[in-house]
Amino acid sequence: MNFTLTTLGTASALPTVNRYPSAHVLNVHERLFLIDCGEGCQMQLRKQGISFLKLSEIFITHIHGDHIFGLFGLLSTMSLLGRTADLFIYAPENFSPVLESILRLFGAQFKYKAIHKIVSGDRPEVIFETKGSEVLAFPLNHRVSCYGYLFREKRPQRNIHKFLIEKYSLTLREIARLKEGENIIRDNGDLLDSGEITYIPYTPRSFAYCSDTAPFPELKNWISGVDLLYHEATFLEDNAKTAELTFHSTASQAATLAADAGVKKLIIGHFSSRYRDLSLYESEACSIFPETCLATEGKIIEIPLKKYSVDEN
Amino acid sequence: MNFTLTTLGTASALPTVNRYPSAHVLNVHERLFLIDCGEGCQMQLRKQGISFLKLSEIFITHIHGDHIFGLFGLLSTMSLLGRTADLFIYAPENFSPVLESILRLFGAQFKYKAIHKIVSGDRPEVIFETKGSEVLAFPLNHRVSCYGYLFREKRPQRNIHKFLIEKYSLTLREIARLKEGENIIRDNGDLLDSGEITYIPYTPRSFAYCSDTAPFPELKNWISGVDLLYHEATFLEDNAKTAELTFHSTASQAATLAADAGVKKLIIGHFSSRYRDLSLYESEACSIFPETCLATEGKIIEIPLKKYSVDEN
Repeated sequence: MNFTLTTLGTASALPTVNRYPSAHVLNVHERLFLIDCGEGCQMQLRKQGISFLKLSEIFITHIHGDHIFGLFGLLSTMSLLGRTADLFIYAPENFSPVLESILRLFGAQFKYKAIHKIVSGDRPEVIFETKGSEVLAFPLNHRVSCYGYLFREKRPQRNIHKFLIEKYSLTLREIARLKEGENIIRDNGDLLDSGEITYIPYTPRSFAYCSDTAPFPELKNWISGVDLLYHEATFLEDNAKTAELTFHSTASQAATLAADAGVKKLIIGHFSSRYRDLSLYESEACSIFPETCLATEGKIIEIPLKKYSVDEN
Repeated sequence: MNFTLTTLGTASALPTVNRYPSAHVLNVHERLFLIDCGEGCQMQLRKQGISFLKLSEIFITHIHGDHIFGLFGLLSTMSLLGRTADLFIYAPENFSPVLESILRLFGAQFKYKAIHKIVSGDRPEVIFETKGSEVLAFPLNHRVSCYGYLFREKRPQRNIHKFLIEKYSLTLREIARLKEGENIIRDNGDLLDSGEITYIPYTPRSFAYCSDTAPFPELKNWISGVDLLYHEATFLEDNAKTAELTFHSTASQAATLAADAGVKKLIIGHFSSRYRDLSLYESEACSIFPETCLATEGKIIEIPLKKYSVDEN
């Protein structure tokens, strides 16, 4: 039951010797979601040993080059590797001419369909779901149409405490109803309490990705309490004015959001090339939200399964 | 008087963990020529400490993705770095819609012009020159329109042996004529022999870039005697049939061409991802042409100035 984030790129507009443009992969139950696709993404995927062909959904935040220039190579390579399965690319509406150009100029030999799924709206909406997980898109506040994404496990079905099946001589019908959370009063007046007899096997995990954006009030509610928040921190506070003008955030602003939203852990990235010493980001953010870490190329953060502990003795 | 090749990428269609797609920089007298621009080229330029803004000419061989996907990022970064000088991109005619798409989708903020200079023709032609150097384009034999490039120093003006100026009491007018290679007969019947009194200060250096191509007969004449030949060697002989079908070359074919054309040194690249052990390329090519080396990311080959040695004693 994997729920793991791998950072592929941490640069903002200008890549540096060691920092690639934005790209992350989230593994949710062995389904791989690629989030943004900066130049060099396919090489970074190879370095991490992540199979291109396992990617079925790509989530693009916005059409600035440092978030999409890797798509040209990645989509071509998928074709060369023999992909035939549809590829779904979730992105704002203005991504359409980009994909159209990729396909027109380089897609003549593609044996698979690359399909643009338009994200829109002014509040979080579910845009994709599997049996066990779902993805919501929500608008950010950038210079162009830009969306963040919230990935979360669905609430799992309740499990029955096995030792109580015998104790109460539960029927299959009763077990099914109790698992749905229903309390049952038997003909003899006995109460079968779902909350006592069943349990939630694990607490759903969640990850929110917010890049690029200036701070805005609604965001803290939309990402409230997530286990892991990736938030851009293009600047430090010494460039707060530039951050404001370019609709970006500082490390302090990212950390303040994390604290206000009650998230468990914050990872910051999208660093401006003007800063060579990334520890400045860490110290600025940690002074506000200690559970902050820096995104670095190849960093892997696993959110462990939060299992319910069953003591059946 | 630099004449130096830097390899930025050695992969063919599929990049690997260590191999980037095609890109090279040739420094001719401190003028930087970028040859092909595969994905990640701008990061590779940074790693080599090569300034983006010093690039004034780019030479694209053909519009397959592994030779051009780095242009999207490189052109955008040039803009972000404040470029205002025109950028000239030499490429076959079918490059036009690619550049048009880059500019339409991502070029709204560019403060410089990116200008496509079409290369065409069925034999070598000078397409660009500076005071001391010139570039010729010549067609290759690939699946799409594809051109190779020959970079060479122009023949320098002859220098005068200074100790002979006094010996023959040469006038300024005589010196100028002798430097032009003219022999002079003075009124008294004395012969002033340009070949004796003047010398060529250095032998012009040359570099040819041939990727991607199947072998064809005319090529050896077009690149005859160059100091350094870069030639693609996508395959080894064990895949000669695939090479033929895809209009590529094997290491043996590249080496045979180098031998037939009497080049001084061969560098091979554009390696297929199917081969992990590159030493196989080296042994296959060196068995035919011992002066072969492998392209590797970051490799620098300097062709030293071949000065005329003047002994004035």
